Amino acid sequence: MTVRAGIVITGTEVLTGIIGDRNGPWLSDRLRDLGVDLAHIVIVGDRREDMAAALGFMRDEGMSLIVTSGGLGPTADDLTAEVVGEFQGRAMVLDEPLEGRIAEILKPLAARFPHLDMEAIRLGNRKQAVIPEGATILEPVGTAPGLVVPPADSAGQGAPIVVVLPGPPRELQPMWQAALATQTMRAALDGAGEYRVRVLRLFGIPESEIAETLRVAEGQGVALERLEITTCLRRGEIEIVTRYEPDGEAVYEAFEATVRERHADTLFSDDGSTIDQQVAALLRGEVPLGVREPAVRPVVPGAGGRTVRTIATAESCTGGLLAARLTDPPGASAYVLGGIVVYANATKVSQAGVDAALIERHGAVSVQVAEALAEGACRRLGAEIGVGITGIAGPTGGSEEKPVGLVHLSIAGPGEGRLTRSLTLPGGRADVRERTTTVAMHLIRRALLAL
Amino acid sequence: MTVRAGIVITGTEVLTGIIGDRNGPWLSDRLRDLGVDLAHIVIVGDRREDMAAALGFMRDEGMSLIVTSGGLGPTADDLTAEVVGEFQGRAMVLDEPLEGRIAEILKPLAARFPHLDMEAIRLGNRKQAVIPEGATILEPVGTAPGLVVPPADSAGQGAPIVVVLPGPPRELQPMWQAALATQTMRAALDGAGEYRVRVLRLFGIPESEIAETLRVAEGQGVALERLEITTCLRRGEIEIVTRYEPDGEAVYEAFEATVRERHADTLFSDDGSTIDQQVAALLRGEVPLGVREPAVRPVVPGAGGRTVRTIATAESCTGGLLAARLTDPPGASAYVLGGIVVYANATKVSQAGVDAALIERHGAVSVQVAEALAEGACRRLGAEIGVGITGIAGPTGGSEEKPVGLVHLSIAGPGEGRLTRSLTLPGGRADVRERTTTVAMHLIRRALLAL
Repeated sequence: MTVRAGIVITGTEVLTGIIGDRNGPWLSDRLRDLGVDLAHIVIVGDRREDMAAALGFMRDEGMSLIVTSGGLGPTADDLTAEVVGEFQGRAMVLDEPLEGRIAEILKPLAARFPHLDMEAIRLGNRKQAVIPEGATILEPVGTAPGLVVPPADSAGQGAPIVVVLPGPPRELQPMWQAALATQTMRAALDGAGEYRVRVLRLFGIPESEIAETLRVAEGQGVALERLEITTCLRRGEIEIVTRYEPDGEAVYEAFEATVRERHADTLFSDDGSTIDQQVAALLRGEVPLGVREPAVRPVVPGAGGRTVRTIATAESCTGGLLAARLTDPPGASAYVLGGIVVYANATKVSQAGVDAALIERHGAVSVQVAEALAEGACRRLGAEIGVGITGIAGPTGGSEEKPVGLVHLSIAGPGEGRLTRSLTLPGGRADVRERTTTVAMHLIRRALLAL
Repeated sequence: MTVRAGIVITGTEVLTGIIGDRNGPWLSDRLRDLGVDLAHIVIVGDRREDMAAALGFMRDEGMSLIVTSGGLGPTADDLTAEVVGEFQGRAMVLDEPLEGRIAEILKPLAARFPHLDMEAIRLGNRKQAVIPEGATILEPVGTAPGLVVPPADSAGQGAPIVVVLPGPPRELQPMWQAALATQTMRAALDGAGEYRVRVLRLFGIPESEIAETLRVAEGQGVALERLEITTCLRRGEIEIVTRYEPDGEAVYEAFEATVRERHADTLFSDDGSTIDQQVAALLRGEVPLGVREPAVRPVVPGAGGRTVRTIATAESCTGGLLAARLTDPPGASAYVLGGIVVYANATKVSQAGVDAALIERHGAVSVQVAEALAEGACRRLGAEIGVGITGIAGPTGGSEEKPVGLVHLSIAGPGEGRLTRSLTLPGGRADVRERTTTVAMHLIRRALLAL
């Protein structure tokens, strides 16, 4: 049986694009893991009638589960609990113990800001404790409680369960786990079918090649209609996400074999790992993530033990983005020694030790300078692997010979290894900078695997 | 008269969270500028019935305009044109001249990838030229044409206009401009009311203080019900966005005066400018953006001319994020000399010239090291302004004395100016890193304005 679900994201600030929504994608992933079929995400402002319309739409579409985010704060425009209560045919009642628990949470805040208006806080606190009768409370992670609201008998047949969560992702995410543990949710999810999800990631081919591969697989008799395949271009990589029921496993394996055969050189992940996770694991000296075949081995693995590889960067056009990306994972300090952002030519010379004559002769955007930057990063910071990047991010500064989007990347190390690539990337300034860091991550992986 | 609109974002890869949607927020901004009342954004997968349901929901909600994005590609799961055609009661017809124009666009692509399957490309090309009869074509920016599809007479009264745009933002944005120029759209927008939108930005107070200010304004008799006020926390800053009809101008001015009076020290923008734009303008030596009163002046402005200020960074926990943010605007090379990412202690010593004894005595995360990093950035890169950052981004590495989230920031320059701040930021690793760069931007602004 299929459990069909919808997500309602509330908040005028989200609808009007002032802040981006992070909850829709996150909840979408969680529902997928549960085998729930997500059909719609609706974003609405803080308007009673628009929120009610979104809930009604979800019911009409046959959802058995609706998840909302936002609108649980203490102010008058926080309407979600009330609108959901009415939607489910449940009266709103004050939960006094909950009011007390929220008051406890607010105490330290009040102590920190002594000039706050305590009466206003008390009223807001009380408002947050008024909930639909019969709802299950999800304890606040911030100050707002969440709710699991089953339909009242009066709500009519086929009415969905509504899970009401706060807007801040930091609060929503743990509270979603709490929601899953409730009796109401367990019963609702009991009917969810089991699905498997597999992800293949490729780098360095146009998306149309995947469309061709799908046709080839079909021609070979692979029953693709049993797989739900989504392909998309993301950060310069192609992701093929396939969702199928367990008895479609053999069909999936046949499809994956076709992809593997046609794209052996560009397929870099079949285990869900991202390029960032792969590079981190390689630098930490751990068993490499990525593809099962062809077997990939780190270069010169420590004799039986882990060999950490240290890395340093010297970036021009990316201005620190690669260093920021390398230091994104917790524990990056074990292998990232640091980096140099060499925006001005004088900085390239003084900080990365690039020969001024080299810049004079070939220009700052050249293969030679990229290589000198990689060497300089190694030498100056004492790292085993150095990454040098120089290019023209635009929108100005391009010429016929060196157009906007032209970038040179070079990896020095480990050991005597050297790897240099030049390419012209499409898009605007932000695209070029972002894509360049992705290319750099793939080059670092190749250098570490000696591919 | 109010023109009510909805946005339908299509694509399984968006619905399932594989890629984030950037079109909803962008279109939302454009509609706001036009005085159109956006009520709902619906995200649906590439499923015919779900797309049709979303369009039907919009019609039932009384929208006179629907904008769709995505689903215009050459493959079988690109369904938008067809679903919209059926929704509007219009037959699908092949537009042969359009087919020819798309073929011209594809020629260079085919030349670049000689091994592509030309028959498949021809079929996809033809599919993209099959459009609802009577629709206005928006010429492709990529390969996909957009459409403005008015309802057929058979579609029933009150049926909305549907503007069909491709998914890639680079294509969608110019094509939206083309859509606005069509006769059909002009007629639809003719009834849109005029709205004004004003944005105030504050830094360094809790959001609840704004709620209090709203109550104070109301108590002073400001008719807030005539303003649509949205407040939100974004990157550690508070934004107050107010939308009102032109005759609400006096009410808005009264409201703004109250905000100005109560938050003079934390209000940093009333002209729409962001902190990033303000810092860039100050470094370029331009007339400063920001608030009209109290008058803000750059320190030591050039005698009648522009004085560019050079800047360099030395970052530990932010790992290059601040340098990347400073180099984000085009033309940043005029004032950003570069930076040092001093992740390892040895790098702090060798690259930023921090005294090893200082690290030994106070620890790498200390006011003293932040100040030494700022000085080092100035000295090593020859910049007028140096920024030093050290802190504990987490999730590990914290202690009772130095908890996760503790960061020290220091600005050296211009001249003898010194500005240092220590604070403990909430949230996870990514939050701490991101927030720290925002605090740094505000400190740079203060240093440049000598506030």
